[in-house]
Amino acid sequence: MFNKRVKIKELLTWEPQDQQVTVMGWVRTFRNNQFIALNDGSTNNNLQVVVELGKFDDELLKRLTTSASINVSGKIVASLGKGQKIDLIANSLEILGDSDAEKYPIQLKNRPTLEYLREIAHLRFRTNTFGSVFRVRHSLAFAIHKFYNEKGFVYMHTPIVTASDAEGAGEMFRVTTLPFDGTPRNEDGTVNFKEDFFGRSSNLTVSGQLEGELGATAFGEIYTFGPTFRAENSNTARHLAEFWMIEPEMAFCDLEDNMNLAEEFIKYIIRYAMENNREDLEFLAQRLADEEKQLPQDKRSEMGLIEKLEFVMNNNFERITYTEAIDILIQSPAYKKKKFQYDVKWGIDMQSEHERYLVEKHFKKPVIVTNYPKDIKAFYMRQNDDGKTVAAMDILAPGIGEIVGGSQREERLDKLEERMKEMHIPAEELWWYLDTRRFGTVPHAGFGLGFERIVQFVTGMGNIRDVIAFPRTPKNCEF
Amino acid sequence: MFNKRVKIKELLTWEPQDQQVTVMGWVRTFRNNQFIALNDGSTNNNLQVVVELGKFDDELLKRLTTSASINVSGKIVASLGKGQKIDLIANSLEILGDSDAEKYPIQLKNRPTLEYLREIAHLRFRTNTFGSVFRVRHSLAFAIHKFYNEKGFVYMHTPIVTASDAEGAGEMFRVTTLPFDGTPRNEDGTVNFKEDFFGRSSNLTVSGQLEGELGATAFGEIYTFGPTFRAENSNTARHLAEFWMIEPEMAFCDLEDNMNLAEEFIKYIIRYAMENNREDLEFLAQRLADEEKQLPQDKRSEMGLIEKLEFVMNNNFERITYTEAIDILIQSPAYKKKKFQYDVKWGIDMQSEHERYLVEKHFKKPVIVTNYPKDIKAFYMRQNDDGKTVAAMDILAPGIGEIVGGSQREERLDKLEERMKEMHIPAEELWWYLDTRRFGTVPHAGFGLGFERIVQFVTGMGNIRDVIAFPRTPKNCEF
Repeated sequence: MFNKRVKIKELLTWEPQDQQVTVMGWVRTFRNNQFIALNDGSTNNNLQVVVELGKFDDELLKRLTTSASINVSGKIVASLGKGQKIDLIANSLEILGDSDAEKYPIQLKNRPTLEYLREIAHLRFRTNTFGSVFRVRHSLAFAIHKFYNEKGFVYMHTPIVTASDAEGAGEMFRVTTLPFDGTPRNEDGTVNFKEDFFGRSSNLTVSGQLEGELGATAFGEIYTFGPTFRAENSNTARHLAEFWMIEPEMAFCDLEDNMNLAEEFIKYIIRYAMENNREDLEFLAQRLADEEKQLPQDKRSEMGLIEKLEFVMNNNFERITYTEAIDILIQSPAYKKKKFQYDVKWGIDMQSEHERYLVEKHFKKPVIVTNYPKDIKAFYMRQNDDGKTVAAMDILAPGIGEIVGGSQREERLDKLEERMKEMHIPAEELWWYLDTRRFGTVPHAGFGLGFERIVQFVTGMGNIRDVIAFPRTPKNCEF
Repeated sequence: MFNKRVKIKELLTWEPQDQQVTVMGWVRTFRNNQFIALNDGSTNNNLQVVVELGKFDDELLKRLTTSASINVSGKIVASLGKGQKIDLIANSLEILGDSDAEKYPIQLKNRPTLEYLREIAHLRFRTNTFGSVFRVRHSLAFAIHKFYNEKGFVYMHTPIVTASDAEGAGEMFRVTTLPFDGTPRNEDGTVNFKEDFFGRSSNLTVSGQLEGELGATAFGEIYTFGPTFRAENSNTARHLAEFWMIEPEMAFCDLEDNMNLAEEFIKYIIRYAMENNREDLEFLAQRLADEEKQLPQDKRSEMGLIEKLEFVMNNNFERITYTEAIDILIQSPAYKKKKFQYDVKWGIDMQSEHERYLVEKHFKKPVIVTNYPKDIKAFYMRQNDDGKTVAAMDILAPGIGEIVGGSQREERLDKLEERMKEMHIPAEELWWYLDTRRFGTVPHAGFGLGFERIVQFVTGMGNIRDVIAFPRTPKNCEF
């Protein structure tokens, strides 16, 4: 048994009483040939290990370079230094793994940029910024499961590989075992997908919703939390080709129930992170404040990160209809001064500039927009009585834009089939989906939350590539 | 707001005191024109709704067919019937969705087989068996997150699409946006993957382990829980092309720490299900007992499902080396009577029949086998001093076979590079993996648990296709 260490996060809560302990971790710095700042990844706070003068061999001390790993035992005493309560006075010290200071790619002196760290994503977890981001990401993921579990939702693993491409949510990746050379062909020259692994053309899922509805109409309430994919050539700070999504789906629910759940859910997981990751969030708040110091005054956030999260937890989201949103935009000074790049009128798919105006300038809080024109929304959304709109809802968040997209679903078989026909969605491929409307259909609703978007919102990171371990984007599949 | 219902699972815990409630769900049966067995998916236990004679229209009552959905309000009274504590006396009753009794594909009278239900996997959640299986699956998934969260492990989402095919864990699916017609080619006629979405040949992951090690060597302890893929043409009751895997990875751990964690983990999640899904497990135990009644006596399980789970929770797993396992097999009556189909000698990759003998006949409990010959194991496993074996461990479970595969990892750069060379693993593709051994390498270990295998073990389901919502297997990608 090798693992007899105490984690530094726990150790830092102890009262110093000469306890004998073993810790293991990576050297962050070694000052004055005497003070090791030791980190084990459990927290950004380092343990100060004191190496008494003359106690250890000089050859050993020379090897205490950044990122060298050590196994150290000794006793816990009150620290004489500032900023920490305890020190560990080393009694034994073993180097587990050296780290050549010349070659180690993260030189703290140079303040490595986020862009540079993206290229060495395999090592960036060892920095304070990414340590905090990924511990917060962990907590948000756990809070999501905790929230739905407490409510009695069933966690469903909807399929990743799917033959269904009917939803039209975006461009898809093909999944295949067919060769490009000597591809099996039909007599008419088309590819013979009967020879492919699944016996038909198959893709990576863009959403688990349709399968989620199958679960909801049996278990009542389900949620998914899994990877989804878009083969879109978008090289932006907001898009990934592979990202994680949470999709709850509830039988016996309408649009209002759906909004209530989404709002409660977002507040719950933010609160969980605030309660469980306070140190990490404070570190990230400071990082963001430092980053924004380089911006002109009018580009800086009005609130600090912690303030913003508290504000979201403690205030109701604004709820407006799409029609009201368009009215607000048309009445806005920005519109009158022709500051929008894209035109505004009823029927448009709002652009990012419009959403940001509503959220960041007009309401200054998260906004739920409902009842969008049916022509800009998916076939499965419930048609309102006005004949023009559907019971959709999007949640827009400051600094991020759309964070949730949802709707009440069309539970009426005739209306659904009619809409599918209009939109050229092949009913025969979705026979199983339509069966839920044939056998005991119920009013139901659900939404999708982009996990990386909420991690961005909570951590204040500006680029989505910095909140997922190994981002997949056009021309980038490293690690 | 539509959702004012009380879930039946909760309602069934109430003391009857004439409470007014609303419930919604699907009709399971309607007896004597008077008693509705109503199910809402929260539990297999139905609520008995009493429809007093003459109170509702006959036309309405005719529509109370299996799987019709209803919204019913009334009061909770003590039941006069057997097997339930309470009844709901209906005051109002609304049909939300009809279900044509002639067309509804699940006719309970005919006792639909598991094979038949697999073909209508979109509706099988509405049966007691699959209701129980997927509620247990949910609980196991939640217990996994709870276990690692409590221990301070960081949940990592390792990438699904990967360019790395170095591990050699199995056949891979290609992920591509290149067309089969007019595929871009290099001058030498090979496919030009620079034109593919990710700028290189890419696949679906077979394991998150290598990326998990990157996390463990920064955060100390991490785990993954995500989908993994094998493009293997195995049409068995034990294999899926898409399945979920949990892969913890721990810095500062050796093989013994690894075994201790795995054993504690498995016992923890079984205990969680036993405490939170007792009714579902009892139902599944009865189902299994009924199924086994059709088998000859000597093919039946020696223990019932509940008994088996209690046994696993309360007993230590057996721990033996591979060498000891081979000795046991060679000394066995089965070997002496030539009952094994495959030969046994030191160096073989044990077959299912050998593993089953050890687990089901010899030890009659889960067995951890350690220190396998290096030639049958992966390149990253730590080489033992004997020059012949590696610090691997597999956990074998009764009725399932291998449920966990893990190892201490080779943390010594020179040994790892040497082994990669011997096994023709291209070091230049794994530069990032080798970096963890260059900069502060540490003893570390981890394992993979196949999620569907443990769900099978806990639910007693014989076919892996019956424990995942929509199984992906050769020539099958429906729903």
